[in-house]
Formats: sequence, C-alpha cells, structure tokens
Amino acid sequence: MKPFDTEEIRFLLYDVAGADRFFQVPRYAHLDRETVDGVLDSAAAIAERYFVPHYRVSDACEPEVVEGRVALPPEVAQACRAYVDAGFMSVQQGLDEGGMQLPWSAAMGVAALFQASNISTQAFLTLTSAAGNLLAAHGSDEQKRRYLKPMREGRFFGTMALSEPQAGSSLADIRTTATPNDDGSYALTGTKQWISGGEHELAENIVHLVLAKIKGAPAGVRGISLFIVPRYRVNDDGSPGEDNNVRLVSLLHKMGYRGITSTILGFGEKGECRGWLVGEPHHGLKYMFHMMNEARIGVGLSAAALAYAGYRYSLDYAKTRLQGRPVDGKDPATPMVPIADHPDVRHLLLRQKCYAEGGLALALDCAAFCDDAEVADDDTVRADAALLLDLLTPIAKAWPSAYCLESNSLAIQVLGGYGYTRDYPVEQYYRDNRLNPIHEGTNGIQGLDLLGRKVSAGNGRALQLLCDRIAATVAEAKGVTGFELMASQLERACARVVDVTGQLLQRAGDPKAMLCDSSEYLAMFGHVVVAWLWLRQALAAERALQAGAGVREGYLRGKLDACRYFYRWELPRAMSTADILVVPDRTVLELDIEGMHP
Amino acid sequence: MKPFDTEEIRFLLYDVAGADRFFQVPRYAHLDRETVDGVLDSAAAIAERYFVPHYRVSDACEPEVVEGRVALPPEVAQACRAYVDAGFMSVQQGLDEGGMQLPWSAAMGVAALFQASNISTQAFLTLTSAAGNLLAAHGSDEQKRRYLKPMREGRFFGTMALSEPQAGSSLADIRTTATPNDDGSYALTGTKQWISGGEHELAENIVHLVLAKIKGAPAGVRGISLFIVPRYRVNDDGSPGEDNNVRLVSLLHKMGYRGITSTILGFGEKGECRGWLVGEPHHGLKYMFHMMNEARIGVGLSAAALAYAGYRYSLDYAKTRLQGRPVDGKDPATPMVPIADHPDVRHLLLRQKCYAEGGLALALDCAAFCDDAEVADDDTVRADAALLLDLLTPIAKAWPSAYCLESNSLAIQVLGGYGYTRDYPVEQYYRDNRLNPIHEGTNGIQGLDLLGRKVSAGNGRALQLLCDRIAATVAEAKGVTGFELMASQLERACARVVDVTGQLLQRAGDPKAMLCDSSEYLAMFGHVVVAWLWLRQALAAERALQAGAGVREGYLRGKLDACRYFYRWELPRAMSTADILVVPDRTVLELDIEGMHP
Repeated sequence: MKPFDTEEIRFLLYDVAGADRFFQVPRYAHLDRETVDGVLDSAAAIAERYFVPHYRVSDACEPEVVEGRVALPPEVAQACRAYVDAGFMSVQQGLDEGGMQLPWSAAMGVAALFQASNISTQAFLTLTSAAGNLLAAHGSDEQKRRYLKPMREGRFFGTMALSEPQAGSSLADIRTTATPNDDGSYALTGTKQWISGGEHELAENIVHLVLAKIKGAPAGVRGISLFIVPRYRVNDDGSPGEDNNVRLVSLLHKMGYRGITSTILGFGEKGECRGWLVGEPHHGLKYMFHMMNEARIGVGLSAAALAYAGYRYSLDYAKTRLQGRPVDGKDPATPMVPIADHPDVRHLLLRQKCYAEGGLALALDCAAFCDDAEVADDDTVRADAALLLDLLTPIAKAWPSAYCLESNSLAIQVLGGYGYTRDYPVEQYYRDNRLNPIHEGTNGIQGLDLLGRKVSAGNGRALQLLCDRIAATVAEAKGVTGFELMASQLERACARVVDVTGQLLQRAGDPKAMLCDSSEYLAMFGHVVVAWLWLRQALAAERALQAGAGVREGYLRGKLDACRYFYRWELPRAMSTADILVVPDRTVLELDIEGMHP
Repeated sequence: MKPFDTEEIRFLLYDVAGADRFFQVPRYAHLDRETVDGVLDSAAAIAERYFVPHYRVSDACEPEVVEGRVALPPEVAQACRAYVDAGFMSVQQGLDEGGMQLPWSAAMGVAALFQASNISTQAFLTLTSAAGNLLAAHGSDEQKRRYLKPMREGRFFGTMALSEPQAGSSLADIRTTATPNDDGSYALTGTKQWISGGEHELAENIVHLVLAKIKGAPAGVRGISLFIVPRYRVNDDGSPGEDNNVRLVSLLHKMGYRGITSTILGFGEKGECRGWLVGEPHHGLKYMFHMMNEARIGVGLSAAALAYAGYRYSLDYAKTRLQGRPVDGKDPATPMVPIADHPDVRHLLLRQKCYAEGGLALALDCAAFCDDAEVADDDTVRADAALLLDLLTPIAKAWPSAYCLESNSLAIQVLGGYGYTRDYPVEQYYRDNRLNPIHEGTNGIQGLDLLGRKVSAGNGRALQLLCDRIAATVAEAKGVTGFELMASQLERACARVVDVTGQLLQRAGDPKAMLCDSSEYLAMFGHVVVAWLWLRQALAAERALQAGAGVREGYLRGKLDACRYFYRWELPRAMSTADILVVPDRTVLELDIEGMHP
C-alpha cells in the first residue's frame, strides 16, 4: 500500500486550487500539466523506492553517537542522494540555476509525497531547501556562492537554529551572543535546542542559520540578528575547512520523528565559533519570518500527508480484514464481513478522509495563494493573495496539526490491537504527527496570531477577501442540484465567523479577554475554511462527474460522500463553538492556579 | 511530582460517590474512613517507592526473550513482591481468607494509585486478581484450592485469554478447540493473541483462563467454554509440575504499555496442553462477561489515572516554567511569567482537569453502583444499582478512553518540545493510554452495547433511574447560589438524551440505521453523564466551602472552576451532537467503499 497517491494531489492542485493557472505566467511558461505530472510521477517513484522502505528502520534505529559521529541507517543517505540526484533539492530554483522552476504549489504537491513516505528523511532535505531559500532572499552574493550553491547541490545541508532551552516560543529572550571580529565575522557563543538535522554525516558540511544578539543590541525581538554558522568554515575554493566549534551537546530522544536528529548545539564553547551576518543587524527575525508562512504551511501539509498515509493504510486494511457480521444478520454460520462494512468503521474512515484530504486541500490552496502573491501580473491580485495567505497561514498550520493527528488515532482504531503494534505503520504516523502541533509556533501561538493580528490585517480586508471567495463558492453551489443545503450552511457559517470576529475584536480594550479563547476561535474558523474547501472539492467532483468521469467515477463520488459527512458531523460543531465564544466568561482569566490541585 | 493524590481519591470516593455508605453494611462493618484512608496511604507509599521509579525503565527496556525466557527489568518483580506482601492482591477478599475485605469502590480507589504510577506493572497484578475473581465466582472447590489460593498469594499469576488472531472483537469466531480426555481434563489446541502477561518469570506459574470450543459445540458464542490452562500442570501438593505445552509464539511490540508482555500463545502445538473446564460447558462467555463490567470500568479508571498523572505533571511544569509575557504587557525588559499565566495554557490545564477528574469520578461512581448491586440490603436498591451499572459501563469504559487520551495529548502540549521527548513522562502516558480505546471491547463495541442493548434494558428502567438521579442533583443545584444556570443546563441535557434515545430507538425496525452512529451517541451521552458528575463534584465542594474548608479552600474552588469550564466548553458540544443524531442520514450506510480512494 503506497502511502500517497499522485491522483489525489493532482485533483487538489488543479481541480480545486486551480494551480494550473500559473502555467500562464511568464515565469512558469515552460510548464504545463503534463510536465508537472511527470515531476510528480518521478517524485512518487523515488519516494516509493528510497523513502518508504526505511520508514520503520529509521524509527527503530534512532540516531546515536558512535565514536563522536552521529550514526544513521545507511538508507537515509541513499534516499537523500536519490532525491538530490533527481533534482528535488531545486524544484523551485530557476532554470538558469539548474532548477525545475516550479510554482510553490506544485512544489508542495511534490513535498507531500515525500512527507507521506518518510517524514524524517524528507525533513533533512526540506530544512536544507528552506535554509537555502532564506539565503537566496537575504544573503549576499558572496554568501550565496559560498553556502547556497553547495546547499542546492546537496553537498551542504542546512538547519534553522532559533530556539534555546529557556526560550522556545519566546524568541525575544534568546541569549546567544555575537561579538564582532575585526574581519567582519562574528564570534558566536550560546546554546540552541530542538535543532533538527543539527548534526549528521549526510553532507560535507552543515550550514546553521542562527538567531543571535549582537552585543549591545536592543532588548527583545528588535535586537535579533541572523547569522550563517557553518559546522566547518568554508575555504575560498568551496571546500569545508577548519572545524568551527559547533558542538553537539546532546541528541534529544523523541516520541516520534525519530529518524532525524534533534539536537542541542553549543556554539563557541571551547574554541571560536564564527558566524557571518545575513543582511542588516537586528533584522534577523524579519528575515526568518519572511519564510515563516511557507514553513508553517509546510507543517500543516506534513500533518495532512501523515494523516493521508494512515487513512490509506487503514482503508486498505478495513477492506480486507474480515471480522464479525452485520448488526441485522448475526448468524455465526454466515461468513464474516470486511470490517469496512461496519458503520462504525466507516465513521472512522470518513472522518480520516475529511481531515486528511481537507488538510491537504488547505495547504495546497494556501500554497497557490503564495504563488499568486509572487507572480500574478495584477498588483491587486498579488496584494490580495498576500493578505489571504497571511490570514490563512495560522489555520493552515494549526488545523491539520490538530485534526490530522486525530485522524492518525482513528487509523489505529481501525486496526485495533494490530494498529497498536509496531508491526503496522499507523502507530508511527501518529507518533510522528504529534510533533506538528508543537513546532514552528505551537498551535496556541497560531491562535494568538490569527485573532490578535491576522483577522484585523488591512482593516479587515483579509477577512473580507476570504468571505468574497467563500461567497463565490456558495453562489456556485446554490445552482447545483443536491448542493443547496450545504451552500446555505456554509453561507451561514461564514457570516457567523464574521460576526464572532467582530464581537471578539470589540474586546480589544482588554487584550487578555479578547484573546483568552483564541485557540478555540482558530479551531472554529478552521472548520469553516475546511468546509469551504470540501465544498469546492465536491463541486469539482460534481463537474467532473457531469462531464463523464469514466474510471474516476467511484473516486469522485467518494469526494461527495466525504463532503456530506463533513457538513453533517463537523461543521455544526464549529457553530457550537461560535455560540460559546461570543459569551464572555472570565473563568480562565481569573483562575486560581494554586487551586488546580491540592 | 507524585502522579496521584490520595486526597483527590478520597474526595471522589466519599464526597462525590458517597462510598462510605458501605461501611454501614454488615460485610464492611470492620471498615471506616480511617481504615480505608490507611489502606490508601499504604498503597500510595508502595506505589511511590516501588512503582513510580521504574515507569520509564520498563518502557525503555521492553520485555525480550533471553535464552528462552522472557526477561524484564528486576524492578518489576520487586514491585510485584511489595504489592503482594502488603496484601494488595487480596484487597477485596474476605477477612477469613486473609484479605482486606474492601468494597469494590475503595479497591478501585487503590487501583487508581497504582495505575497512575506504573500502568504496565500493575497490569500483571490486576489481571491476576481479575482471573482470581472469576475462579472465585465460578470455579470448583478443587480448582480454588489448586489455582486460586496460590494466585491470591501471588505465587501464581493469571491471564485472560479470549482473542485470537482472526477473532478480536468477534469471539463467536474463535477456533481454539478442547477435546475431552478420559480423566475429565481437555486437550487444548489453538492460538491466542494479545494475551497480556502471557509469559514471564514473575511467578511460579501462570494460570491462563482460556475461551475455547469443545468439539461438537454449537456455532457462535453459545458454543464457548472456559478453561483453566496452567503454564505448568499443578501437582497435588500445589507445586508446579510438568510443562503444559503453552508455547510463547512471539512477543508483540506495542506503541506503549511496553512494560507488560503482550503475547501470542500456542496451545498444544508439540505436546498435550491440558485444560480444566470451569463451570458448565458452553457457558464460558457468560462467566467471562460476569466480570466484564468490572474489567471495563477498570479500563476507564486506568485511562483516567493516566490522564490524571499527565495533568499533575503538566500543571506542575506550567507553574514553574517561565516563558513569554502577558499579551497586555510585552516589554522584553520585564521578567518572563510562568506559562500557567497564559490563558491558552490554562485552557490546556482546565480541559485536562475536566477529563481526568471527570473520568476518575465516573469510574468510582460506577464502582459504588457495583457495590450497591452486591451488598445493599434492599432488593430494589440492588436491582436498580445493577441496572444503572449495566447502563453506565460502556460509557465508563469508552468515555475516559477517548477524552483522557486527549488529555494526555494536552499535557504534552503544555510541555511543548520537552513534552515530545522521552525525558519527560507525559509522552509515555499518552502512548500507554492509546491502548484503552482498543482493549476490553473497542469503543465502537461500547457504542453498540449502549444503544443496542443497555438503554432499552428493563424496558427503559435503567435510563429512567439515571434520569431520576440526575434530577435529584439538578434539584439540589437549583437551590444553590451560582449553580442555577448549570442546573438548568443539565436538566435540559438529560431531557435531550432521553429524547434522542427515543428517536433512535424508533428506528429499531432497521437496526443498521438505528445503530450506525452509536459511537457518537455514546460520546454525547457520556458528556452528559460526566456533566452530572462534575455538578456533583462542584456541589460537594460548595458544601465543604460553606462548612469552612480551611487549607482545602483552594482545592475546592478549583473544582468549581473546572465544573464551570465543563459547562461552558464541553456540555454544549454534546448538545450539538444530539442535534445531528436525530436527523437521519444514510451517507455512512450507503457509502461506496471502493470510492474512498482511487
């Protein structure tokens, strides 16, 4: 059972997100559906051949330090090599740089295949791409030559080193210090924690992008600068040279995501650790956050990809595992039926489908907004897309992190006792997915971001733009037989989001009261957005069915079923949350924390 | 940080479940609060000294077969010895048998302490107790002498061997066969799977209680008999003798619950495996299910105990971990605050408290019904308690399994990246707890049991009895200042459960349609029951506060906060589910399963 399906990605990319519109833009004029499909097929082949087989292995054989070096199963290096050789480190890079020059949406479609296949191994690679993109945007030509080029070639790998032991979500409080040297470099001292891919032997060098404070910098986030800190200093000929005194303090042992090293790194503890400033001093966080929308949507996508993998596995299991008989025919002399015949198992499968494919649709749609924001030829379209992207990013990160994790739990439930053993992959999907609500800004941070900043961005224009989009879908759905009720449900739900938002923003004079339920607000908002995406999926399926679907008929009808399921079982719960949110309550704010246990 | 608190158990046991009423009954006349408190304190001391310290160890050092024997960390045997020596194997046994002769409710209070401390190690012991209770109820005098006595003494351990590889939830389809021997014993052949504690060296012998079909037995569940199948045959002098050919086929490697062996056992593969019939032929399932209420409530209790352990740990962490600043005072020059000050973290803590303490209250209340059903001196009280117990058992099993698992996920979220590492216990609580929705009847099975059987039991008398109890709580709450709104909320919720139940039962002509959403029905019903238990907790706290609480004031106010939280955030969601349930929908029933993916 393959953990992914390129057909699903294509449906979401083209039929739902309409991402083939970018092939009309000059930058992507070299592309058409056929080319991109070829890229997806090639990614699928590499993922299936090199990434899937060692998913269990790299979980069971966790990274360990052997003779001072981090040892990983050899399959990890082989998979990385195959990925780099096939050009996937440069899917977005320009043709002139030897890249594939794909839009971000298509690149995310590709990423989902690798994420579903082996989340840990792909993380080494996408971290390197992300660090590379940051250098491409903000590095000097010299820095690009020295660091970015070998990263694109897969000779150097990259990391993002933000958090510290005492400062996870609170970057204002980082303590890593950069002291200027005479030669323009800086001497770095400090400790970073949770650095994924922070140490390994998969590449000739590791380029850490490190947030630090230059001595005398302003307090808080306005005093943070960004530095390139290589594991080995890079000689002028591009070869790795002297050790740069980045020390592996320890490997962290996680519940899941075990295939990639998570590290504590010490900078400059014994000898000088040199860093090179990226861009201007004190602008580090801005540069880092320039990439944050992409990083957060990537987290949401990976959560959805893991849910999708679990959904596929458990669906296949449910269709073949015989157990019990229908409730209306319990004669033990009759043959047992596949468990997929039991309504309760169907609930478990449909909820997974709703969450997994809803999450994938959300991430890919956001990726398309990201492309619009960059390449659309109309200024307004670009600006509007950027606003929509900003608005939806916290949802695209947090909603799949929460519901697609739940989806993986449902996959275990379908397999029962088998699902609880490590002989089946569903428990690993679940363990791996549990990281997603935590990293790249916890889901709590996303709620604060959404309600505290994003919904009021552009004086509410972002929210209005979203409502306009939803209204367009509603208008279309109202004209399609069988869609009328769902259309009105979504229309009311959208109006309710606007209403709730308005009521909460009226509490702006008391920020604590306004923001104290922001996670619940995000969950409610997220369900409405995903309901919108499900209606778009169902409309796309209905259009295709009307046009004559042939062999895809079953697949398309499955989309209609899942959409109906979401509107029956999921969307009403969001409305229930909305009813709660508008009633002010100070229990949480006035809680006596000492009373919480004796 | 202790993972349990005897004060909490006492509050739920006495102030909420009123379980001190049993001290008035002749069988428990030797007890009073002080005695039982002493037992709880002694259990707490042993749990803290012998069970807590190796919780991580026995997860990390999973059982393995070494030279043909299952090796466990030595701490497991030490803990079992301490437990047996202190008499906890016989908490419910009569004084005349050397037991403590506690009511089941008090025994469950004790069990919760061990479950919170080390779920795997206590499972070896409670499985032995449960198997012993089954023999005590249905075994012959000879069987009690030969098997039960050494089990009570902790010399022999026990298992329950029901499931088979092809028959997990569907016991009608078990294939293990028993062929009569001339001496009255049976020769067993077959394979059992998921047998917890199926092999180890913690005791001199292992007494497997095995469901099997006697050759020629009727098909289905009416042809199942129960057998004693010892690992070693027991000599007349009580010593373990000849090997009985129960072979360890393999150890299962699970996501959690790793400290106890989960096994596949082969019976009679190479030599004769002898079993001795318990009770009458073909009545095995009845005997086994005689203990099923207790077993299922035990699962719910363990889910709640794990949630409670995680809640306590994360609460303690949140009070000491400094991070960030209030949303209305972000000056980085001001000191960081404990994360428990952030409203979003408070949500995570309050939800845990609601789920964990709600789950504990539910299990202990059911245990008290179990005691009523056995020892109340009034026939009607006994019969009514038995009906209530039957009704609530599927909820007591499934509700905590679902929501207390979620609670453990919230504990991880409070700790952030730290919570995701194995250096902190919260991820293990979560992994361990994931078993609970699966074993002793999956949660889906519980939903079918509740809606398919229990709510119509006694022509609806069970449900009526529950409503009467709830009405009494509502009546009390209406008279207490500050409780009026919650009282009406619960009143309406209870009426809604009755209404929904009636509407669903009207579909009885089409069992599939009636039962297709039974898990959602159980979740809705469960939330209302737990809301009732929360109101009772709050009323008990309010009474204590009125009486002058002294040092307990903070604790009691915490109960009021959590109750308000449950009524604000949780109960309305159940009402939303109720609204969905009453609208018939055939999406799930008519689903084209082949269309679920291409």
